[in-house]
Amino acid sequence: MSLAPAPETLADLRVDGARLWQSLMDLAAIGGTEKGGVCRLALTELDRQGRDLFVRWVREAGCEVRVDAIGNIFARRAGRNNDLPAIMTGSHIDTQPTGGKFDGNYGVLAGLEVLRTLNDENIQTEAPLELAVWTNEEGSRFVPVMMGSGVYAGAFTLEHALSQEDRESVSVQDALTAIGYDGKTAVPPSNPNEVGAYFEAHIEQGPVLEAADTVIGVVTGALGQRWYDVVLTGVEAHAGPTPMPLRRDALLAASELVLAVNQIALAHAPDARGTVGWMDVFPNSRNVIPGRVRLTVDLRAADDVTLSAMDAALRAAVQAAAGNRGVKADVEQVVYFAPQPFAPALVQSVRDGARALSLSAMDVVSGAGHDAVYVARVAPTAMIFVPCKDGISHNEIEDARPDHLEAGCNVLLRAMLAQAGIA
Amino acid sequence: MSLAPAPETLADLRVDGARLWQSLMDLAAIGGTEKGGVCRLALTELDRQGRDLFVRWVREAGCEVRVDAIGNIFARRAGRNNDLPAIMTGSHIDTQPTGGKFDGNYGVLAGLEVLRTLNDENIQTEAPLELAVWTNEEGSRFVPVMMGSGVYAGAFTLEHALSQEDRESVSVQDALTAIGYDGKTAVPPSNPNEVGAYFEAHIEQGPVLEAADTVIGVVTGALGQRWYDVVLTGVEAHAGPTPMPLRRDALLAASELVLAVNQIALAHAPDARGTVGWMDVFPNSRNVIPGRVRLTVDLRAADDVTLSAMDAALRAAVQAAAGNRGVKADVEQVVYFAPQPFAPALVQSVRDGARALSLSAMDVVSGAGHDAVYVARVAPTAMIFVPCKDGISHNEIEDARPDHLEAGCNVLLRAMLAQAGIA
Repeated sequence: MSLAPAPETLADLRVDGARLWQSLMDLAAIGGTEKGGVCRLALTELDRQGRDLFVRWVREAGCEVRVDAIGNIFARRAGRNNDLPAIMTGSHIDTQPTGGKFDGNYGVLAGLEVLRTLNDENIQTEAPLELAVWTNEEGSRFVPVMMGSGVYAGAFTLEHALSQEDRESVSVQDALTAIGYDGKTAVPPSNPNEVGAYFEAHIEQGPVLEAADTVIGVVTGALGQRWYDVVLTGVEAHAGPTPMPLRRDALLAASELVLAVNQIALAHAPDARGTVGWMDVFPNSRNVIPGRVRLTVDLRAADDVTLSAMDAALRAAVQAAAGNRGVKADVEQVVYFAPQPFAPALVQSVRDGARALSLSAMDVVSGAGHDAVYVARVAPTAMIFVPCKDGISHNEIEDARPDHLEAGCNVLLRAMLAQAGIA
Repeated sequence: MSLAPAPETLADLRVDGARLWQSLMDLAAIGGTEKGGVCRLALTELDRQGRDLFVRWVREAGCEVRVDAIGNIFARRAGRNNDLPAIMTGSHIDTQPTGGKFDGNYGVLAGLEVLRTLNDENIQTEAPLELAVWTNEEGSRFVPVMMGSGVYAGAFTLEHALSQEDRESVSVQDALTAIGYDGKTAVPPSNPNEVGAYFEAHIEQGPVLEAADTVIGVVTGALGQRWYDVVLTGVEAHAGPTPMPLRRDALLAASELVLAVNQIALAHAPDARGTVGWMDVFPNSRNVIPGRVRLTVDLRAADDVTLSAMDAALRAAVQAAAGNRGVKADVEQVVYFAPQPFAPALVQSVRDGARALSLSAMDVVSGAGHDAVYVARVAPTAMIFVPCKDGISHNEIEDARPDHLEAGCNVLLRAMLAQAGIA
């Protein structure tokens, strides 16, 4: 391929924002909804159409395409030295049932736009580049979520993932075969050990960047999570004849706990989160004192020391709330995701990229799960967030500004080049 | 009839507790459940069987039976001077679907036992006595609750009550006709203006007497009630990516309100009650910040000044809880029952009766609705409570002690005689 461009050319190197936007709109048309969203569930016929379009695009961009046994697609752009670990980017193209155009799709098509830009400028990288589409990130049709990246990173086994079934008892294996993405006709999958860096661009899916009027979120890591089921058992009784001091009201205990969960998160600002999202009141009758409340607690923190402290505080709060009200309490932790710091050198590449482009940027944490959080277990990883309107995602009204999407893509380009090197 | 008994005979006058208990068990056999409760819904074939048994018993006791147009049954034991207003007692014999043996049935059969005891002792009263069975107190099959006494007291019209339908679209009128208690074949109904006093004996359906180890509750009145629907609207958002300060969590506002409702009731101890019995969280998903909570509030107090103060405090608490959390609030009062003080002279008769019998007694309020609360709108009224096990009612395990039931019946006997006079 060509000689490396002169440094002054690189400084002016930019992706084509209009082309990126057009790719997003073209892919969003597959499963597009009347309200402007997208419904393209994992491993459906619509997912096949989306995958086929992606494969056509990356082949047109000169990439070699491989599919692994869980249906992850890897598009490889050769480097000068293909023995070097690949510099990878990617995300997912499956959506929620009432999903938007940008969640996941942006990360995939930003990667595509990087490849196309390099092609336009005839730039060869030292290391090969790899663009991944991870299978079933959303988990709407099949659980667990982040299935493709989870198998890739060894979070669970391929066999476990393949045997999962949707509500119509169709297995992942059968769905993969039906759409022709079961990896059996392709070359062997990419190996995490061959990955030198993984970057994922994504809409923030939260309100922080917009509130701070900032374009680039430099994601330093993902919050760890502990999820709990709590059952509070008091005594159901008539609201009329039962004086206040003789009550054992499970909802009073639950309400104290909801407020305590909020306080526990605030005590570990700014990154910690504490949420009671689900509550079930029994017997849920207007004039009956609630005898039982079941609720969930979702605690998140950036490091395990904090998360453990929050766990201890939660357990104390449950006992205090229950004890105050003569109520019995049962707490069970049902989910644990370890905090996942990203690779400092790659995070710095993102930060540097934003600075070089004179884009407003701030360090943020990812409160939600992403494919990058699993990939980070096996390869150096970082993420780039761009704002989404009102922080809304998993919704047909999910929206993002073309200039923000373009800016994030330019940062991705620079971060990848910084890691891959110019040949 | 005979001469009046000598005063020393009256002092020793007692009901037959074993006969009262046997009557309770005989009536409870109609619709008796495997778990020892009773399922005898209003105006069903089982209700007809219960009514028929009652009518046979009171006829055997020498009473004249009349049925009014809403199916209330009035059994009249003549006095010496039948131009005097009648001294009435009664309650209901319909039950909840999983009801007990004593709720309502006790008041009716305690009245029967009073009449039988007077017959045994050949005692003639000055005023006539009247024993009422009110139609559909429970409201399980047809609403509104306390239907028969409500029509009697003019709380709503006969036509309104007759046109109500159950879930199978059977009207009250048709159900009354089907069981032969539509009052069309009977003499004209009793008239509230002809009632000099109404007493109702009832199990407490609450824990106060048992907690105080007291046999007789001298009921001074019924709490007024205000019921509300509250809707709190925040912003639904992902629990992970949304930092605590940027949340508008409707469940946090709801939890503050639940605790505030409790505080409002405690501030008006000992009679006031405040309960959130029903709560609906939207979207009720483990990792989504609740965007909307609907809940009910039930406030009760013994007088309208207190109830109005609680109403004002509630509305302030709703605004405070919502304002603290950036949440919108909507409050609607959906039910109002005025506080209903009972007639002081009749309350004193109950108190005197307990004292004469050396029974432990305490003044209590009725937190729940009873037929007596409606009757009190048109005739001087009082109630007698006896303990029920663990305060539990509307449950097949509802239970009461034979000696307590007998004691309450003896108080009823004395209170009625005090008002009716001995001929």
